[in-house]
Amino acid sequence: MADPLRIGMLGLGVVGTGVARALIEKGDLLAERIGRPLELRRALVRDLQKPRPIHLDLLTTDPSDVLENPEIDLVVEVMGGEIPAHEYIVRALRAGKHVVTANKEVMAKHGPEILTIAAEQGAEISFEASVGGGIPVIGPFKLDLMANQIEQVRAIINGTTNYILTKMANEGADFASVLAEAQELGYAEPDPTNDVEGIDAAYKLAILGSLAFHTIVRPEHVYHEGITRLTPADFRYARELGYAVKLLAIARARDKQVELRVHPCFLPEEEMLAKVDGVFNAVTVDGDLVGRILFYGRGAGAGPTSSAVVADIIDLAQRSMAGQKYVHAPSYTGRYQFRPMDEVCTRYYVRLLANDQPGVFAQITQALGDASISLASVIQKESVWMGEPPTEYAEIVLMTHEAREASMQRAIQAIAHLPVVHEVGSVIRVEA
Amino acid sequence: MADPLRIGMLGLGVVGTGVARALIEKGDLLAERIGRPLELRRALVRDLQKPRPIHLDLLTTDPSDVLENPEIDLVVEVMGGEIPAHEYIVRALRAGKHVVTANKEVMAKHGPEILTIAAEQGAEISFEASVGGGIPVIGPFKLDLMANQIEQVRAIINGTTNYILTKMANEGADFASVLAEAQELGYAEPDPTNDVEGIDAAYKLAILGSLAFHTIVRPEHVYHEGITRLTPADFRYARELGYAVKLLAIARARDKQVELRVHPCFLPEEEMLAKVDGVFNAVTVDGDLVGRILFYGRGAGAGPTSSAVVADIIDLAQRSMAGQKYVHAPSYTGRYQFRPMDEVCTRYYVRLLANDQPGVFAQITQALGDASISLASVIQKESVWMGEPPTEYAEIVLMTHEAREASMQRAIQAIAHLPVVHEVGSVIRVEA
Repeated sequence: MADPLRIGMLGLGVVGTGVARALIEKGDLLAERIGRPLELRRALVRDLQKPRPIHLDLLTTDPSDVLENPEIDLVVEVMGGEIPAHEYIVRALRAGKHVVTANKEVMAKHGPEILTIAAEQGAEISFEASVGGGIPVIGPFKLDLMANQIEQVRAIINGTTNYILTKMANEGADFASVLAEAQELGYAEPDPTNDVEGIDAAYKLAILGSLAFHTIVRPEHVYHEGITRLTPADFRYARELGYAVKLLAIARARDKQVELRVHPCFLPEEEMLAKVDGVFNAVTVDGDLVGRILFYGRGAGAGPTSSAVVADIIDLAQRSMAGQKYVHAPSYTGRYQFRPMDEVCTRYYVRLLANDQPGVFAQITQALGDASISLASVIQKESVWMGEPPTEYAEIVLMTHEAREASMQRAIQAIAHLPVVHEVGSVIRVEA
Repeated sequence: MADPLRIGMLGLGVVGTGVARALIEKGDLLAERIGRPLELRRALVRDLQKPRPIHLDLLTTDPSDVLENPEIDLVVEVMGGEIPAHEYIVRALRAGKHVVTANKEVMAKHGPEILTIAAEQGAEISFEASVGGGIPVIGPFKLDLMANQIEQVRAIINGTTNYILTKMANEGADFASVLAEAQELGYAEPDPTNDVEGIDAAYKLAILGSLAFHTIVRPEHVYHEGITRLTPADFRYARELGYAVKLLAIARARDKQVELRVHPCFLPEEEMLAKVDGVFNAVTVDGDLVGRILFYGRGAGAGPTSSAVVADIIDLAQRSMAGQKYVHAPSYTGRYQFRPMDEVCTRYYVRLLANDQPGVFAQITQALGDASISLASVIQKESVWMGEPPTEYAEIVLMTHEAREASMQRAIQAIAHLPVVHEVGSVIRVEA
């Protein structure tokens, strides 16, 4: 049996506790499987006195006890957040330690610089747990799909929003009440902004996009739009028209450009991705050789995240034991430009309230036509009574053919200003 | 740029041509991504004169031109079949060459011995393409899921049968006519035995089971039963009862025993696996940390298989460039016995024809009760006219609670011998 791999942890919250528990409770099993003990030596916490579900004698509140400790080979960062995790990761690498992190924010914002520091130091950084929890998604891009030209990645990579959307779809409930319920169950944070506004998914897409297209993708390259404005009516129409409503993270290569965007989508309900419900995540990849593949599983939680973190630890334990350097480091050999959101083309679903009078359709289609947008179909529903005193409106639902985002925004502005139009309720992109 | 990795191929059929084409057409791209050219040096074929879709100057009919050629570093075996592929793989390893194979039959029958020879020679063998085409499934077991105790693997890993079952479900067609159509389209072989009898899936399950349970699994440890006896009536009842009909490959650990079986199943239609249609494959894994994950994609064809073969080549190219030995070799540290099929417990769907007379139900439930099997539900359908001269029978459909296979077989024997029973049409296991 080889010398133990000596591990220091940063953070002992839900995920950290899961990782520590796996290392301790599965110690013998893992040592036997990989030929080397994994030894937890130190764990950085904020509060030594806090009651914890596992008893550990090796807690410290001094970061340098982990980061600059000569008796530690590998640092596991599971604190989350950018500050001070980013600094700690860099310090650990500069001290020659390998790092395993589950931190999507740090990897999305600083991944390329961190990978460069690691390479300079002969140290390594692994981040499988940063996207999709326990689902292997980073590994496949680094190796299994390497022979492919990736055409697109489409993913449901935020469990909180997928839980909310699934509830809204199944129960006809509105966003606010489902969010409140999700917060009570612990599926949503007290401040849900990062999740419901698509920021968390945008971080993850930046990581996946970098790997898929061999290109440095920054969070600011990813357009994001949240789910807060979706209404029960949109879910009813989606179902009627044969679609699921999902917050999709899309990275797509077209004509040497990559578009990266996170927003609610109408997705044909027969697609596998449309069947991913609740807190589950899924990532689909279209490659020129492999065709479409999909990875599915739990994207968060102590167990799934520990599964990925410990796999990264095992990988580094085995390779460093054999004196190996990491060989599947991302290569930025892509030749892509970023496509501005304005130039992205999709189909659109539009729901609006208009006066119930002759000529309304003509004015709306005129506004769309002026922006060179053609209609695929129009549904006019029965009247809706709104306002005080109640006024009768016609609810009109449109599906367009593919149109440029900038054109669509212009048309929507024009439609919203039509005197016959009371309100443009929803504009949702449709995935073909 | 490092020295090229010099590749020799065994076989230049559909898959071999796909691999050769990828290596040649993507040569510059791959060299840039991995820092080392992949150079095709020789390809063993049976017939030098045969017209081929790609022009190659390096064909040979002499196996030693590849296997013992000192100018070849890595051998790609894409001939398929056991003989002579098995011998060639061993010869290549003994000559110190790395081997990449897509051969499920050889790996299922001889995998453990081949891995031992490779280890002795300091050579390596990779076989990602042997299961699930381009879907990464071997890699995840070797690394990503290593921290997990695997509870079960359930997979659709034969595209031919899944295509046939999907057609039967969607069109109400019978097995023979759908098989004939699949043969015409090239989705089924002229001799379809290996596919439709579950033999191909059993090979693949032996490979997955070995990896999942860290145990040497031989094809003879895998029970297999084909899809030839399924009737349109079974598909109608399945749909009515909320199930899809799938040929599942199941490897499950229970009480320190592993059961391995391939057979048609009723699978609840809300499960992701039930939604895998046509030639697509999917593998679900339940692990103690990760929960349930699923991998989905095309399980066969030149493109997907090449994707996996070339990924294996890239992996070996990068690691041998860095002077690395393979570290994620399977470890047989599992402590499992094999559970005989007789002792496997599942629920059952039974469809039978009986005389339409009082007391029939009582006799059937008596026979089941004698074998300690309890009924979950009974559906009696309208009469069926069969035979010449036509006789009226009652079609009876039963669902049992969980029962031991041996008990069920005994009960079915008893029921088949009841004078009131005309025929036991189908007995299909139900996945809970």
